[in-house]
Amino acid sequence: MKLIKGGVCAAQGFSASGIHCGIRKSRTKRDLGLVYSSVPASAAAVYTTNLVKGAPLYVTKEHLKDGVAQAIICNSGNANTCNANGIEIANEMAKELSKKLNVKENDVVVASTGVIGLPLSIEPIAQGIPTLVSELSTTGNDNASEAIMTTDTISKQVAVEFEIGGKTCKLGGMAKGSGMIHPNMATMLVFITSDVNISSQMLQKALKSDIQDTFNMLSIDGDTSTNDMVVVLANGLAGNECIDKDNDDFKTFMKALNTVTVQLCREIAGDGEGATKLLECKVYNAYNIPTAKIVAKSVICSSLLKAAMFGADANWGRVLCAIGYSGANVDINKIDVSFKSKKGEIQVCKNGAGVAFDEDIAKQILLEDEIEILVDLNDGDAFSTAWGCDLTYDYVKINGDYRT
Amino acid sequence: MKLIKGGVCAAQGFSASGIHCGIRKSRTKRDLGLVYSSVPASAAAVYTTNLVKGAPLYVTKEHLKDGVAQAIICNSGNANTCNANGIEIANEMAKELSKKLNVKENDVVVASTGVIGLPLSIEPIAQGIPTLVSELSTTGNDNASEAIMTTDTISKQVAVEFEIGGKTCKLGGMAKGSGMIHPNMATMLVFITSDVNISSQMLQKALKSDIQDTFNMLSIDGDTSTNDMVVVLANGLAGNECIDKDNDDFKTFMKALNTVTVQLCREIAGDGEGATKLLECKVYNAYNIPTAKIVAKSVICSSLLKAAMFGADANWGRVLCAIGYSGANVDINKIDVSFKSKKGEIQVCKNGAGVAFDEDIAKQILLEDEIEILVDLNDGDAFSTAWGCDLTYDYVKINGDYRT
Repeated sequence: MKLIKGGVCAAQGFSASGIHCGIRKSRTKRDLGLVYSSVPASAAAVYTTNLVKGAPLYVTKEHLKDGVAQAIICNSGNANTCNANGIEIANEMAKELSKKLNVKENDVVVASTGVIGLPLSIEPIAQGIPTLVSELSTTGNDNASEAIMTTDTISKQVAVEFEIGGKTCKLGGMAKGSGMIHPNMATMLVFITSDVNISSQMLQKALKSDIQDTFNMLSIDGDTSTNDMVVVLANGLAGNECIDKDNDDFKTFMKALNTVTVQLCREIAGDGEGATKLLECKVYNAYNIPTAKIVAKSVICSSLLKAAMFGADANWGRVLCAIGYSGANVDINKIDVSFKSKKGEIQVCKNGAGVAFDEDIAKQILLEDEIEILVDLNDGDAFSTAWGCDLTYDYVKINGDYRT
Repeated sequence: MKLIKGGVCAAQGFSASGIHCGIRKSRTKRDLGLVYSSVPASAAAVYTTNLVKGAPLYVTKEHLKDGVAQAIICNSGNANTCNANGIEIANEMAKELSKKLNVKENDVVVASTGVIGLPLSIEPIAQGIPTLVSELSTTGNDNASEAIMTTDTISKQVAVEFEIGGKTCKLGGMAKGSGMIHPNMATMLVFITSDVNISSQMLQKALKSDIQDTFNMLSIDGDTSTNDMVVVLANGLAGNECIDKDNDDFKTFMKALNTVTVQLCREIAGDGEGATKLLECKVYNAYNIPTAKIVAKSVICSSLLKAAMFGADANWGRVLCAIGYSGANVDINKIDVSFKSKKGEIQVCKNGAGVAFDEDIAKQILLEDEIEILVDLNDGDAFSTAWGCDLTYDYVKINGDYRT
C-alpha cells in the first residue's frame, strides 16, 4: 500500500472538474464541482443522522438505491437545506447534468454545502454545467476539491495504490468540512473513487464498517451537520476479480479504504474551523471497544480541554473530567494520562491522580501542532482513536458571522 | 412572594463569612467561605453525575445521610479532586470547623472549587478557620459569596420572602459557576438557606424535583463538573407547622425554591465564562416534556449557535440543525423559530423553512444582552426552558490558560 497523488482522479477512468458558476459572490472561489467515471460504478454512501437533512441527500439516496452511479455534482455556498423547493432544485441539478454528460439521471449523486435556509437558484448551476463538463480532466481533482470547500483552509485529498489478485488498484478521495463536524453545518462531504471491481453490496458493507472507526470518531464542534455524506464509487477498471464476498481481497480493499479515510479524518480535524492543532485521543486497554470509543470521543469533544490545548496548558484534570461524564463505565482510579507530540511524551496522571511533572517540558510538547492525548484505562485490551482540534479565537470569529 | 436582599443570610438564624486564607495567591480575593445556622437544619443536596467526583462530595454525602446539617464550609482556588489524600483533607476541613464552631462534625457540609488534581494543603484552611468563625455575621453573605467565586465576574445571590400558614418565611441562596457548567469544572455550587420548617425528606423531594427544570437545564460549555453540588438548609425558625407531606404549604415552598433557583440559573448563564449574552431557549407545544427539554438543551448547547449569537447573526439554520441532531422525535416541517429581546421579536422560520425577514431589525434584537430563542414545535402542549450563553473570544482566553 503506497500513498500516491491524484485524489479522486487517481483511480482509472475517473476525471473531475471545478468552476465558479456564481453561487458565491467571490469570483475567485470555485463553487461547483464534478467527479465522473467513464463507466457506471458500484456506489455506496452513508448520510447524516440529523433529522434535518439537506434536499440533495434525499435525491442521492433515491438515486443510489440500485447501487450504481457514474457522476457526482456538488456545489458550495448554499446547503440547499430547509428550503421549500429544495428537492426540486436538487432534482434539476441531476437532470441538467445527466443531459450534458449523457449519463442516466439516477446515476448522478447530488451534494450541496454552505448556508442553511437560503433558497438556491438553479440558474447559475444550469448555466455552469456545460463548462463544468467540458473542463473534465484526469488532473481536475484539485479544481473539484476547491469547488466543494467552504471555511476549509486546505484542500483535503488522499490516494493509495495497492494490489488485488495481481492487479494494480487505486483508491482516492477528497473531503471538505471544517465546522459543524461531529460529523457536521459547514458540512462534511467525502467523495472516494476507486477502480477496484467490487459489488455495491460489499462496497456498502466496507463503507459502513469503516466509518464507525473513522468519520464517526471525528468532532470539530459537536454539531452534527444536516448535509454530511460520504460516497464511494468503484468502477472496476483495475480488472481484478469482482469482490462479492468477505474474502482476503475484501480485507485488502478495507485496508486501502481505511488508509484513505483515516488520513482524511486527520486532515479535516487539523483544518477544523479556527483550529491551530490536530488532537488525537488514543484510548488503550479499555474493557471493550464501545467503552474506548465513548471515552475517546468525550475527551475530544470537551470545550474546556480544547481551549486548554489551544493554550498549550497541560490541564489533565479536564481529560479526567471528560472521561467522568462520558457515560462510559470506567474505574477512575486506574486511569493513566500522557500528552505526546513530536517533541516527546509526558505522563501527567497515574491511577487517577496527578504525578509531578515538568511544566516547561509539558509546554514544549503541547506547543506542537499535532497532539496525542494518551489515555490508558488499564481495564482490558480494547483500543480506539478519536480526532478533533483545539478551540480558538478564530472558531468564534468564523462562526460569529458565518453568513456574511 | 417578593424578592428581598440578604442571599444566604436572608432567612432567620443564618449567618455567613468569607476570608482570604491563602489558598489563592492573590491577597485581594477571598478563598474560604462559611454559612452557619444557629440551630441544626433539615438538609438536602444533589451532586454531580460525573464519575470523577471531588473529595468533598464524598464527605458531604456521608454527613447528610441523616438529613441534618448546621454549617457549610467552602474553599475556592482548588477543587480537591483527583488528589490521593483528598478525602482526608475534606474530613480535616469538617473536623477543624466543627471544633471551632462547636457543631457536630457530621453536621458540616464541605465543598471545594478550582483546579483539579492539585494537592490541597490543610494548613491555610486550619489557620483561617478561627477568623472565619469570628467574622460570622448576618450581613456576611456578600463575603461568603465572594469567597466561593472562581472565574465568576459577578456575585450571584437571590432571596425571597413568602408566607406559610400565616408565618413569614424566607429562602435565599448563592451560587458560583462560570465554566464547566452543564451543570460543570470551574464548578457550579449552589447553597440555599431557608427558615421554613420542613422535614429533610420533603426538602430532598423539593430539591430533586426543582433541579430537573432549573440547574439541569443550564449549560455554559457542555462539560459536567466533578464538583457540582446544590445544598439546601432549612432551619425551621420561621415557626410554620412542619411541612412533612405534599400539601399546599409544600407547593408554596416549591414555588419559593423555584423562584430562587431560576434566577440563579439565569445569573450563572449570563455570567458564563467569557459570555456577553444570556440565552434562553423556550420550547413551546412539544409532544411531551422530555421532548421539549431535549430540544431546548440541544439548542442552548450548540457551539455554532452560541458563536452566531455572539456575532448577533440571525443564523436560524443552526437552531434547526441543533433540533435535528438532538435525538428528539419531532416533525421538522412543523417548526417555527423566532428571536426575541427587549428590542422586539422577529420570526425567522415557519414550518421548517425560512421566512423573509428584515436583517437590520434582527440585528438590533440580537445585539441585546438577553436573547430568547423561541421554538414552537406545533406538536402538543408541553413546554420547557433552557439557559445558556454565547461562545466568545474570552471563553477561549479564560480556558486557554486556566491554571496560571
